Amino acid sequence: MYPHTIATKLHLCYAFFMVHLPFLLTEDGICRLQEGHLFILDRRRYPFERVEVSCRNAEEVATALKAMVTQGGGPLEVALKTMIMEARNHERLPLLNQVRHLEEAARLLADARPTNTTMARSLNEVLSEVEQRKDEPPVKVVEETVRTILDRFAGIYHRIGKLGSTLIEDGDQILTTCFAEHTFLLSLLYAKQAGKNIRVLVSETRPYLQGSRLTAPSLEEAGIPLRVITDSMGPTMIASGKVQLYMTAADLVCRDGTVVNKIGTLANALACSRYGIPYHVLAISPDPNKKTRADVTIEMRDPKEVTECMGIKTTLNTIEGVYPAFDIVDPELVTRIITPKGILRPGEMEEDGI
Amino acid sequence: MYPHTIATKLHLCYAFFMVHLPFLLTEDGICRLQEGHLFILDRRRYPFERVEVSCRNAEEVATALKAMVTQGGGPLEVALKTMIMEARNHERLPLLNQVRHLEEAARLLADARPTNTTMARSLNEVLSEVEQRKDEPPVKVVEETVRTILDRFAGIYHRIGKLGSTLIEDGDQILTTCFAEHTFLLSLLYAKQAGKNIRVLVSETRPYLQGSRLTAPSLEEAGIPLRVITDSMGPTMIASGKVQLYMTAADLVCRDGTVVNKIGTLANALACSRYGIPYHVLAISPDPNKKTRADVTIEMRDPKEVTECMGIKTTLNTIEGVYPAFDIVDPELVTRIITPKGILRPGEMEEDGI
Repeated sequence: MYPHTIATKLHLCYAFFMVHLPFLLTEDGICRLQEGHLFILDRRRYPFERVEVSCRNAEEVATALKAMVTQGGGPLEVALKTMIMEARNHERLPLLNQVRHLEEAARLLADARPTNTTMARSLNEVLSEVEQRKDEPPVKVVEETVRTILDRFAGIYHRIGKLGSTLIEDGDQILTTCFAEHTFLLSLLYAKQAGKNIRVLVSETRPYLQGSRLTAPSLEEAGIPLRVITDSMGPTMIASGKVQLYMTAADLVCRDGTVVNKIGTLANALACSRYGIPYHVLAISPDPNKKTRADVTIEMRDPKEVTECMGIKTTLNTIEGVYPAFDIVDPELVTRIITPKGILRPGEMEEDGI
Repeated sequence: MYPHTIATKLHLCYAFFMVHLPFLLTEDGICRLQEGHLFILDRRRYPFERVEVSCRNAEEVATALKAMVTQGGGPLEVALKTMIMEARNHERLPLLNQVRHLEEAARLLADARPTNTTMARSLNEVLSEVEQRKDEPPVKVVEETVRTILDRFAGIYHRIGKLGSTLIEDGDQILTTCFAEHTFLLSLLYAKQAGKNIRVLVSETRPYLQGSRLTAPSLEEAGIPLRVITDSMGPTMIASGKVQLYMTAADLVCRDGTVVNKIGTLANALACSRYGIPYHVLAISPDPNKKTRADVTIEMRDPKEVTECMGIKTTLNTIEGVYPAFDIVDPELVTRIITPKGILRPGEMEEDGI
């Protein structure tokens, strides 16, 4: 079972905010620690099956992350709980060895998803606490730090969700790409709670189909009307006046307001810019170490994924694909960035020192 | 077997032009008349299987066209050969009944694919010849007129292909959407024949996957290097300087230069416009009856196709999709339109009286 202290604290937190998150965004819907294993909900098979991938150490978790067992915000929680698992698994070793295992675990995890730097920075925070609190057992420091970080993120999710909801108007049809998780779902839930009638167009998000498989069922569970479109249709819907707002999460936001998000985001952002539709980005954690697009590393994933869908070949075996996993969107294509510090213009990110 | 006269004439025609078309664009690769049936190559199952759908009359052909057994330029040849089949099937009826059967067949066929008007206009040409040549047996008039039309289109395909090849430069990576058929393949083949090194990025073209299933194998067969991308990646490739030219066919071109083509075309055209990359359209038959976008009817196809891929559900059964099949691209987003009359700017379409 997931450590009682954390579970209780988070449940209280959610209860306080009074909106109900769909399964995929609940604690158990992401991952859970049990009997020395980390069980990660396999998002590749959701919503058709609810199965978990079981991992015994950071290496297995890194392999699972590379294989996209979970994605989006999932790796953050998975990586943090992996640190607890690693700390517990090695608590009988000499202190120095415990620390080395944690450092090695953090390196493996961060390397598994190079574009989203929120996870890497959170892992560094854990290591830094262990380093600073040398007199305490690492397992205790890791458990407490992870709890602090997860609580902080829960707070950030709800704060951003409330801010996001203020940018949604009654009657809006909102376009989204990929699975924008807590901040997006909470923005919609708070808008709905405020009595606004909203609808969503969900871009299916090839090749992994996060839109069709994760966002659409989660919206349905949340009682928000939606329809799925192919990724080719977003700009068409924007051009024909059927979209009042484009809203996504961000895998990374640079200090100059450059947004990095799932491939397909740029197409819609370009259409928004041309047709005067706002594009708002939900950013739980802008990266102070990334100044501009020049600092961004785009993950190139296995091209085979592009020539398959749901595990079935879409063309001949001899034919190759290309798979850049993320888009880099210039600040001038972004209307607002909704951050823990407030609703900012892209140009305000830097001066605000986020 | 396909009538000898037509086959010979077309083979001579292709031999004359000295480039070898891939299977899908050969006579038998589209459809063939045999023993009172029209056998249509099932593009839904290509390239995994080479199977044909057998039709006995225009009604069955219309059903096959609605079900996307063939698409793009396929329906034109299918519809014309259906008229031969219908004429032959009813040649023993009184003349007036023969004509009525042909009129009814043309209506059924045209209604099966409302956006592409080339087919409808060719069917009207057949009916008009039958009307004018009242003294001749309809079956003879239909066979001759269909032969004339198919020969004319073969000539147009090669003329456009040669013009198109002049707009391709050595070293270009060309992006395309859907299956742009004869004119696109011939443009590339003539460019290759002229010694130009070219590569193609093929947008997979969800939901029917014409890019992955039809264009990619045809390019491979033609010996032209290619890679497949998801539809979300075209604008990214354009923005990052990896595309020198975007080239598609058009399902319809209006007199003001408005281009109607497969959904997904607009996204790439918007990116081309922003990043200064040319977008050239291959138009075998601009429609003189369509003045502007206001005259265009966009086919809304079965939304279930959007929540499936290769016949497999991509989300829960309860979740709905939307499926506008085509994009309307404003003339200012189009660089050149390659027509039977030459390479035109979109604004030159009207004055040229095409």
